[in-house]
Formats: sequence, C-alpha cells, structure tokens
Amino acid sequence: MLKIRAVPEAGLAQEEIRRRNLGGLLRHVHLGGPASRSALAERMGLNRSTIMGLTAELASAGLVREELPDDTGGSAGRRSLVVRPESERIYVLAFDVAVDRLTAARVGLGGRVLDRRSAPRTRAGADLAYVVETLASLGRDLHGAAPRDARCAGIGAAYCGMIRPGDGMVRYGPDMGWVDQAFGTELGRRLGLGLPVAVGNEAHLGALAEYARGAGVGVPNLIYLHGDVGVGGGIIVGGELLGGDGGYGCELGHMIVNPFQGRRCLCGSAGCLEAEAGERALLDEAGRPAGEYGRDAVRAVAEAARAGDPRAQHAVEVIGDWLGIGVANLINLFNPGVVVFGGMLQDVWPAAAEHVRRRVAQNVLPVSRERVALRGCGLGDDTTLIGAAELGFASLLSAPC
Amino acid sequence: MLKIRAVPEAGLAQEEIRRRNLGGLLRHVHLGGPASRSALAERMGLNRSTIMGLTAELASAGLVREELPDDTGGSAGRRSLVVRPESERIYVLAFDVAVDRLTAARVGLGGRVLDRRSAPRTRAGADLAYVVETLASLGRDLHGAAPRDARCAGIGAAYCGMIRPGDGMVRYGPDMGWVDQAFGTELGRRLGLGLPVAVGNEAHLGALAEYARGAGVGVPNLIYLHGDVGVGGGIIVGGELLGGDGGYGCELGHMIVNPFQGRRCLCGSAGCLEAEAGERALLDEAGRPAGEYGRDAVRAVAEAARAGDPRAQHAVEVIGDWLGIGVANLINLFNPGVVVFGGMLQDVWPAAAEHVRRRVAQNVLPVSRERVALRGCGLGDDTTLIGAAELGFASLLSAPC
Repeated sequence: MLKIRAVPEAGLAQEEIRRRNLGGLLRHVHLGGPASRSALAERMGLNRSTIMGLTAELASAGLVREELPDDTGGSAGRRSLVVRPESERIYVLAFDVAVDRLTAARVGLGGRVLDRRSAPRTRAGADLAYVVETLASLGRDLHGAAPRDARCAGIGAAYCGMIRPGDGMVRYGPDMGWVDQAFGTELGRRLGLGLPVAVGNEAHLGALAEYARGAGVGVPNLIYLHGDVGVGGGIIVGGELLGGDGGYGCELGHMIVNPFQGRRCLCGSAGCLEAEAGERALLDEAGRPAGEYGRDAVRAVAEAARAGDPRAQHAVEVIGDWLGIGVANLINLFNPGVVVFGGMLQDVWPAAAEHVRRRVAQNVLPVSRERVALRGCGLGDDTTLIGAAELGFASLLSAPC
Repeated sequence: MLKIRAVPEAGLAQEEIRRRNLGGLLRHVHLGGPASRSALAERMGLNRSTIMGLTAELASAGLVREELPDDTGGSAGRRSLVVRPESERIYVLAFDVAVDRLTAARVGLGGRVLDRRSAPRTRAGADLAYVVETLASLGRDLHGAAPRDARCAGIGAAYCGMIRPGDGMVRYGPDMGWVDQAFGTELGRRLGLGLPVAVGNEAHLGALAEYARGAGVGVPNLIYLHGDVGVGGGIIVGGELLGGDGGYGCELGHMIVNPFQGRRCLCGSAGCLEAEAGERALLDEAGRPAGEYGRDAVRAVAEAARAGDPRAQHAVEVIGDWLGIGVANLINLFNPGVVVFGGMLQDVWPAAAEHVRRRVAQNVLPVSRERVALRGCGLGDDTTLIGAAELGFASLLSAPC
C-alpha cells in the first residue's frame, strides 16, 4: 500500500544509514535465528560486501559470530558463513509484574529464556518498595548467576498499568491503586547495574511479543487482548506498536460497550469492556462468590462450561458476547490480520470463541472480516515477559555499536 | 518514544537513500512552502552540500526552482538561495465524490487549488457510468485549461466508501449501494491521460489533509470524523494513515455504541455510531420529516439549537452524547493529540461540543485526556478534495526523479 507522508521528515545521512543497517542485521538474526550471509543479503536487499562489512563490525563488538554451517550434506561447493547471535554472552534482564506474581528472567540475544526466578505476590504486597525490592533481588540473583564473560545489554519490565515511556513512571495502575509511582527509576536504582530500566504496559509488550515470536509473526496489523483483573490491549499498526501522543494508547478495556446500566469499572466509569468481560464479570455470571478470584477461578469456570455446566456456559456466553462487541469494534477500526487472546483470556477463549465469532459476523463490515484470524496467544504465560525482554533489547538493536 | 521493530526489515542501499532524500526535500517545500537551502539543511539534518546536490536534481527535473529571496531588508551579507516548488507547472488532478456533489480541481505542487469545476449530483445519479463520465468531463476540462508548459504529475480521488488501495475498486459504498465497482480504473480510462487514478476513502483523505495543512498540522496522532450521510473516519497513527491489512481500517462509524435497540444502520447492523449520531438521527430527533435531508437540513437544526429551539437543542444533545461515547472510546484507544470534526459534523460540532466534552471527561482515562484537543476542521468543505490532491502527489513525492 502506498504510504503517504503528510509531514516532512529528516533526511538520511551516512552515519544514520550505517547505524540502521547494523541494527537491521542484528535484528534479523535476533528474530530470525542464525542465517548465512547470502540469506541476509537477500532478505535485507543489500549486496554481500555490505553484509560482510556489517557482520564484521557486529562481530568485533561481540554481538554475533560467524561460523561454518553444520554439515548437512548436499552441496560440496563453497558454503556461505552463518551469522549467529551471541545468545549466551549478550542478554537482557526482563521483569514481569502481574497481579499475583513477580517474575524475572535472563533472556539471551535471539530470544531464549536462559534463566528465570519468580516470587508470589499477594494483594497485600502492593506497594512500590515491596515490588521493587523483590524484583531487584531476583534480578541481582540472575545477574550474579550469569557466565563471567556475559554482558547485560538492557533491562525491560512489563507492568499492568499505564506507563510514561521516558522514565517508566506508572501513571495509573488501577489494580493496585498506583498513581504516579516511579517504578522504572526505582527498579534501576535498586538493581545498581548502571543501566536504565525500560518499562512498558504489559499488554503493549504482549502484543510486541506475539508479533515478534508468537501467534502473529509477520502480521503487521495485530490486536492483542490481555486478560488480567481487567482487560488490557496492545495494538500493532503497520508494524509498529500504537503508542499515541503520550504512550497511553491501546486502552481497549475502557471502550464503553454498555452505555446503559453497565457494570462499574475500576477506572471510575461504567460499561467498559473490561467491566463487562473481565474476570469479575465472568465469575459473577457463573455464580461464584466474591471471595473467589484469580486465574484458577477463571479456569474452573471455563472447564465447567466445557463439561456442560449450564451456569458456567451462560457466563461464558455473556462474556463472549461482550468480548465480541469489543472485538468487532476493533476489527472495524483496525482491519487487523489477527486478533490474539492472552493472559486469562487464553483460558476463556476456547469456550467463548463461538460467541465472539457470532458478533464479529454480525457487526463487522464484510470486507474487514474477509481475512481476519482470531486465536489464542502463542507464547502462553510468557507473552508479557518475552515482550519485556524485547523492550530491553530495543536500545541495542537500534544502535548496536 | 522508543520505536520497537518486532520484525526485521530491509536494509538501506545508496540508491534508496538518494530517492528518499529527494522525496524528502520536495515534500518539505510542498508542505512547508519555499525555504532557503540553509533552512532545509537544518530541518532535514543534512549538510548544505547534500542539499545543494538534491536541489539541483529536482530543479533539472523541473520540480523546483532556486531564486534569490525577496529583499526584506536586514542583513547585507550573502543570502541563501530560496528553493520554491514549481507550483504553476506541476499539478495534480483531484476529484471528490460526495453524496450530493461531484468536484474536480487542479492543485499545484505546494497545495494551492489553481482551478476547479463541480457538478451537482442527485441521488438518481448513482451509477458508475454517470459518476465516472461526469468527473472525466470536468477533469478533461481542467486539463485543457492548464498552461501549455504545465505537467500533470498524478491523479487522486476521494470516494465515500471502502476502497481497495491498489486499483481504486470501491468494495463497498453504502450510500449509493455500490459493491465492487471499478471506479479508479474506469475514471483513469475515461480521462485518457495515461496516468493511474489513486483512490482513497474520503475520510481517510480528510485526515491526511487536516494533518498536512489543516487543524492538525504537526500532530502525529490525529482522529478525523467526517459526517456525510454516515460518519466516516480517518486516523493518523504516529504520522501515518492507519490502513490495516487491506486498507479498510478507520471505520469508526461502525463502532457499536448502542448494543440494545440501536437504530438500524445502512451496513446491516444496528447501534453503530453513524446510525446513532449521523444525519438521519439528528433530523429525526429534531422532528424533521423524512423528506428533509442533506447539509442544509443539518445546518438548519444546528442553527435552531443555537437560537434556543428546545427540540433542536434536544437533538443536538442526543447526537452529542452518542458522538461523545464514540470519541471517548477513540481517545482511550488512540491517545491522540487532536480530534477533528469535518463534513456535516463541522456544522454540528459548535452546538454539540459541550455534550461531547462531558462524555470525554466522564469516560476517558485521565492520563489520556490530559492534552487532547477537540476542534472543527481547518479546511472547511475542501478537506476531502485537498486530501485527494495529496494522494495524487504521493507517487511524485516518493520518487521525484
């Protein structure tokens, strides 16, 4: 499709081109795995001598190495060297703050989780100091256990709230009642590694992860719905995460779907998608008492619906219908290639799918639903953690050396 | 904000860089007007010798000329040459198909309308042959009246429907009942200028125009709502028009805002934003008979509301409330810097503003409404036509020579 730029932009100078091409090549092996120089030349549309020069720079910076390919038989001719990311030596620390769990991982260049730690989190452990100290302790632990020649290239964290991009300030975290908490800055300070912590909204990062390595690889228009206590969203538009003016976009959970007598929402409004289709709505419709909550309770309802329990089936139908209205609106707005359900919604999705699809068929314009796929997430419960790792790698990949 | 690319992209080779910089410089003078070499060097982040080389190439292709600046007094030192777009010699033909009017214009590089023609359109004149023949006749007329040394660099058209980007096929045009009508191809054939016609949805192009030259210049996250018979939308995300997988995104008029007993919509669904807040809803709420319709009828209601007529005030309040729910949802999703109301909504906006703002205050998350502006469009009834001209210029600007 023809891209129309409606504002003038900066020109491209030589140094910028070198930087972009270095980042581009490193991103190719980070996301696509080891590749021969000739394959990289073809994929990047650059000639082989340019690729050779870029590879040499990345290798001397310790980011990739070149090796003869494994001998898989076949051609006896000259084989192109394979460029591999230094997956054991270059890593990021990734953190994931969920409502009931704090997770930290060491993730190598190339995206493999090399090591991980986690700690339970109770609703009592809601304050900044507790969260930061627990994460910092897990992170220092992982860092200490890394090989001596390994290098931490960045730090990323996923948080279930609205995050100011520059400094990782949690502007609003409804589930814990956080307002303007300096999460990123504090975590960086406590870790003491001399690196800033890049923080992102968990659903934004989930979308990036599913796009990079999950259920939506190569689908540049992707919508990710993340169920937690609420319903968060991450939306990829034309290959980039939709941030908006302040980085606070994608709040699909606060789309009003029920303007009349809607359920109260944690945000202070009523009739929001997350109020109508979130955890509490599901459990209420299924007749579960207020004291039951969390992933296990949600799974129990989904399981009961599958087993034929009428009350649970009713709950899944009600939630599926609201979810379907929300998803239909999103498909009309974004004309995406794929809609991905993650977090607790991956448990609800199989049971609710038919109800969601009915709404999509009813409410989406025919040309916009010609090719859209709806599916559960591809990275399971690691979606947001992997997204945090990608965020941690972003600086390195945009300016590798 | 840090952009994270979650898929690898092509590298940048020298030829591509030259092309981008030529297009970038031409876009600067097209959108920003005549500028000195030194100003261009600064804005584009390139050195002056690079700018000089690019300018020379564009000048020899007849796209810009260099002149001494008007003597405005001041410094007696050496003055930097001013680069001017060849606004009289390089032009596009722009077409706008609205429900009640067919318009054609010759628009010069730099964006000024040099000449225009229009013809009324009745609801009887709905078929492809009539629309194409009328437009082609207006277009040939304009082309014939152009100076002999002028060159037509492209053709753009705005249509009130869902458009396939490649060939300008109208996949769905609800107001005229068009399905899969080869509008772009036919118009190009009838014009006989040997140039393809780039067709876009009118609201998409309206958004581009408002972003390029209207109420949202320099605001890279912008939502444009276009009232016609229905309510169309164009959404700029991070400086680019949101297209989606097939180019059919931005259909904000078909967001379900009223899931219970909503008004029937032309799309076959019910409770869509355009059904609840469109022309017919306004006129019905104001008690106007079914035989009254169109811009004049809408203006009459807005005028009556302003003059204190209670029934008209009620109509504006009802429509403003639905519009507010839609706009609130969009702000939560897109975190835009500006929301712009165009088409018939520019007439409704002044009267409905307070009702829309009430909903925004009530339903938008505080951090997302910190800085958003809501306003009427800046280009009046030319918004979609100017957008069509920008579409016509797109090929030239992306590869000028």
